[in-house]
Amino acid sequence: MADRRFAVDDVPDPDHRLADTAANRHYVWDPDLDPAITVDPGDVVQFDCRDAYDRQLPRDPTPEDVAAVDAEGHPLAGPVAIAGAEPGDTLRVDLLAFEHEGWGATAVPPGDSGAGLLPESFPEPHVRAWDLDATADDGTPVARFRDDDAPAVSVPIAPFPGNLGVAPEEGPASTIPPRNVGGNVDVKHLTAGSTLYLPVEVAGALFSVGDCHAAQGDVEVCITGIEAPMSVTARFDLADRSVTQPEFETTGPFTPTGRDEPMYATTGIAPDLMDATKQAVRRMIAHLHERRGLSRADAYVLCSAAVDLKISQVVDAPNWTVTAYLPESVLG
Amino acid sequence: MADRRFAVDDVPDPDHRLADTAANRHYVWDPDLDPAITVDPGDVVQFDCRDAYDRQLPRDPTPEDVAAVDAEGHPLAGPVAIAGAEPGDTLRVDLLAFEHEGWGATAVPPGDSGAGLLPESFPEPHVRAWDLDATADDGTPVARFRDDDAPAVSVPIAPFPGNLGVAPEEGPASTIPPRNVGGNVDVKHLTAGSTLYLPVEVAGALFSVGDCHAAQGDVEVCITGIEAPMSVTARFDLADRSVTQPEFETTGPFTPTGRDEPMYATTGIAPDLMDATKQAVRRMIAHLHERRGLSRADAYVLCSAAVDLKISQVVDAPNWTVTAYLPESVLG
Repeated sequence: MADRRFAVDDVPDPDHRLADTAANRHYVWDPDLDPAITVDPGDVVQFDCRDAYDRQLPRDPTPEDVAAVDAEGHPLAGPVAIAGAEPGDTLRVDLLAFEHEGWGATAVPPGDSGAGLLPESFPEPHVRAWDLDATADDGTPVARFRDDDAPAVSVPIAPFPGNLGVAPEEGPASTIPPRNVGGNVDVKHLTAGSTLYLPVEVAGALFSVGDCHAAQGDVEVCITGIEAPMSVTARFDLADRSVTQPEFETTGPFTPTGRDEPMYATTGIAPDLMDATKQAVRRMIAHLHERRGLSRADAYVLCSAAVDLKISQVVDAPNWTVTAYLPESVLG
Repeated sequence: MADRRFAVDDVPDPDHRLADTAANRHYVWDPDLDPAITVDPGDVVQFDCRDAYDRQLPRDPTPEDVAAVDAEGHPLAGPVAIAGAEPGDTLRVDLLAFEHEGWGATAVPPGDSGAGLLPESFPEPHVRAWDLDATADDGTPVARFRDDDAPAVSVPIAPFPGNLGVAPEEGPASTIPPRNVGGNVDVKHLTAGSTLYLPVEVAGALFSVGDCHAAQGDVEVCITGIEAPMSVTARFDLADRSVTQPEFETTGPFTPTGRDEPMYATTGIAPDLMDATKQAVRRMIAHLHERRGLSRADAYVLCSAAVDLKISQVVDAPNWTVTAYLPESVLG
């Protein structure tokens, strides 16, 4: 079995652990929440995070199971107050370790929900559960579809929290959109070893985290990555720098293998960036369906889990170029 | 001196060479242009391409030199007619080799031109010439500013053509915006070893290429990459696949070194993708200026040459996340 823990070297023992209890969990961002715990700068905290489905899915879920999930937002672990943090400060968060439980799921919501990048093209809901304990031939931990009848795909695991941030000045606020203070930023490069800087808006900062992904493509097109319950270990400090939105240091991975590898790319050339994004993704779904044999729904899932999106140019007016990149290695 | 040639292994001798002559050069896309040459499928052609400044800049140009460039569009080498290509076909272009001349330049246009991503923030024009014959300590060919008083930056060289495509059905058409048939796509991953697929709209396809860059960041924020005169060697074939816009196979590089390396990242979180892009780039320029000591104008140039832009998510309504990535290795 592949290692379920992804960590920097020499992670210190946590000073505090937030177990998955009602007192340590919330579903909205709110500056008026009581902290689950107050820690000192330099402290290390382990958060036991539910997945975005709030631990309500069975191992092999149906779309009906997904539709039945009853949660008012992302379950977030926290909030953690950092002693001495004041509005105008910058919180430094060192992401030290993630440990998953061997399971994840990616769901396409029904089109009439309007959720995801291409709801009009995917009226029917779809869901795939993933086995996170698989390994590629070279030993790399990979995610594979649990259903033996599903296509053979291997998505290297690179865990990160989709949703992490500090409390906004005003609340309660939905966990869906990210904000200046972070939240649902869904930046796939916030992996173990990364350092995140967040602007503090309320006393104590009130940091929370959740919505962990075992892997995700840039854009997270179907609105879910490989959603997985996971523990997150992080160290907190106040930073001597000023930021107005999240900034961070990372070493990737910038490709599934961490080095250059063959990719298939589709472009979206259009005068609007969102339209260009949709075109690039639609062409990648067509590529996966017509040339690589995936169903269109599985292609959408694979794009959400493993296809990256770059803005190639936004200066050659009036048409911009957005490009979608599929690592060939994930097919098989 | 570093090798000026970037090529796949075993590039065949070209079957044809388009020297830089008036007959082999044009400044608009136009289906009515006479082909410079007609080639057979399978033929290899070498194109001698002017830089985007039409070879009109001195080695160490001033903004006045840039403003004085007199060209009605990008100088393109071609067009090459491919025998048998018909509307509805797909042209396959294997990019085999690039060879630069040791020199390039990146220019920020005056703000009142409205060109580039942030014209309102950069009213004054600026230009930096690059030495393309430098090497990093590990032997990697890198671009460095020619001016000894300029900041020490080292941008790994990864040549590609900013502008390549086939003739559109209707013309004459500007070389500035890219279209379904390609053109000024400015995709930095169309490096040697890449294979590009283009939809053919006119008999013979009429392929042209130019606007080569020794390196470029995604987005090419100041509107120029490291613009450099260069030869391009490519093989043409008709492909048994249907595409509606450019699609391609590439192995990157996806980072300057071709493997994971430390990056500093800034986010733009906003309800509009263009605004999010501008915010991420503005924060990266502030980072380079305030923390790394570059002038704001040089920071804009370095972003255009070496900072990548990803769409991290466009599903967490109403706020999207765009992220800019600066490889730490380019500073120094």
